[in-house]
Amino acid sequence: MKIKIGILTVSDRASAGVYEDLSGKAIIALLTTYIRSQWEQVYKIVPDERDAIEKELKRMADDEDCCLIVTTGGTGPAKRDVTPEATEAVCEKMMPGFGELMRAVSLKYVPTAILSRQTAGIRGASLIINLPGKPKSIKECLDAVFPAVPYCVELIGGPILECQDEAIKIFRPKS
Amino acid sequence: MKIKIGILTVSDRASAGVYEDLSGKAIIALLTTYIRSQWEQVYKIVPDERDAIEKELKRMADDEDCCLIVTTGGTGPAKRDVTPEATEAVCEKMMPGFGELMRAVSLKYVPTAILSRQTAGIRGASLIINLPGKPKSIKECLDAVFPAVPYCVELIGGPILECQDEAIKIFRPKS
Amino acid sequence: MKIKIGILTVSDRASAGVYEDLSGKAIIALLTTYIRSQWEQVYKIVPDERDAIEKELKRMADDEDCCLIVTTGGTGPAKRDVTPEATEAVCEKMMPGFGELMRAVSLKYVPTAILSRQTAGIRGASLIINLPGKPKSIKECLDAVFPAVPYCVELIGGPILECQDEAIKIFRPKS
Repeated sequence: MKIKIGILTVSDRASAGVYEDLSGKAIIALLTTYIRSQWEQVYKIVPDERDAIEKELKRMADDEDCCLIVTTGGTGPAKRDVTPEATEAVCEKMMPGFGELMRAVSLKYVPTAILSRQTAGIRGASLIINLPGKPKSIKECLDAVFPAVPYCVELIGGPILECQDEAIKIFRPKS
Repeated sequence: MKIKIGILTVSDRASAGVYEDLSGKAIIALLTTYIRSQWEQVYKIVPDERDAIEKELKRMADDEDCCLIVTTGGTGPAKRDVTPEATEAVCEKMMPGFGELMRAVSLKYVPTAILSRQTAGIRGASLIINLPGKPKSIKECLDAVFPAVPYCVELIGGPILECQDEAIKIFRPKS
Repeated sequence: MKIKIGILTVSDRASAGVYEDLSGKAIIALLTTYIRSQWEQVYKIVPDERDAIEKELKRMADDEDCCLIVTTGGTGPAKRDVTPEATEAVCEKMMPGFGELMRAVSLKYVPTAILSRQTAGIRGASLIINLPGKPKSIKECLDAVFPAVPYCVELIGGPILECQDEAIKIFRPKS
């Protein structure tokens, strides 16, 4: 099974070319250090528009068959921040534990971690995870939740993600 | 007031008789060590079907007058896991603190604790709590949340659950 | 920009004059120690009725232009406790991190903290936060989340809340 992973940057400014998408690049770099299996990236930048985010999440899940889709940006309290709402709208199942753990981890660094509304959910055979917008917070959050990702992907019918043990300690319960 | 407690095992395989329901039995054994008051169990096994789960939760709450209903199984990310959705559908009020605490406690043991979507809620005078499927995790989770259960049952109009202080430290705030 | 803060006490008994509203007073006293900027309070007591709570939250947000609205009471599991439902009904965005952190902090004191269903959300340019009903718990919870409040208020288009550094350590990320 070919492994495809979606990286979706949600940002008005990055999508308008006002600045470089460092966040999306940071996610791709992290996933490259984590995952030993061969995988292919499906990468896209969209503005902070709910329709555009939902459409792209659906395309990555349904047409591209990405087993994992990671978003960055749009999880704050501002009017234009709608990534969690778009994620919930396209998911059949929500995974509250991802957001809880990412906020708890970020709280060790900044009290404003509670302002992040990031969540995660399942659409078909795709796990969708919202990450924050800043490269530093992205690593903190992805390091925290990724140990559970390969097992989750298997449980929803996806491929086996083999990982680099030196980069990330993956866990699979013995059933 | 007669005390009745519902134990609902949600499992395709246990309901088909493919294996023994060790999880439901583990819950009954734990509740027996916790609770000193006389109580009666209302025990049922259903497959991972949303309709069957909702119907049984309603019956235990509305017809059997269970003050507490504990489910096991069906809280993961897989397609057939629908216990949290069924619970939310029959509850008037959700209690997010139960799921948060159970995931936080399980996280001390396994990073895959974030994959558990278990929740809790209130239907009429019944407190419904989702527990995970594995006997070991059941004890970790129930030990963590049960200290708040008797007070909650009283607040929603249920009976007084007297407990064994050596087995579990119950807490009731002085109002 | 004139700074207005809403304090909404939700209590059948306080609204009927059966007892004094110590909780609302405790919130006003706390905010007075926290905030150095000049601000004006919009204070109201309503019974535990969803319509009355929603109507008052809307008035404080839309007509009074409160940048922050803090409620107390009505967050428990009892039949009359409907403050979180009223809050969610009037908000465009929910902020799950507030409830998670307040419950985690209260859990250090009492195991019944998981029974609190308090949440937070955004309506227009107003941040609405539910606090528990007891003055002691109010301080624990507001001390925990307030460091993120001024930055949140700015992100949703509100005024700058200057604070007393000796009373509360506010945090604003460098962007």
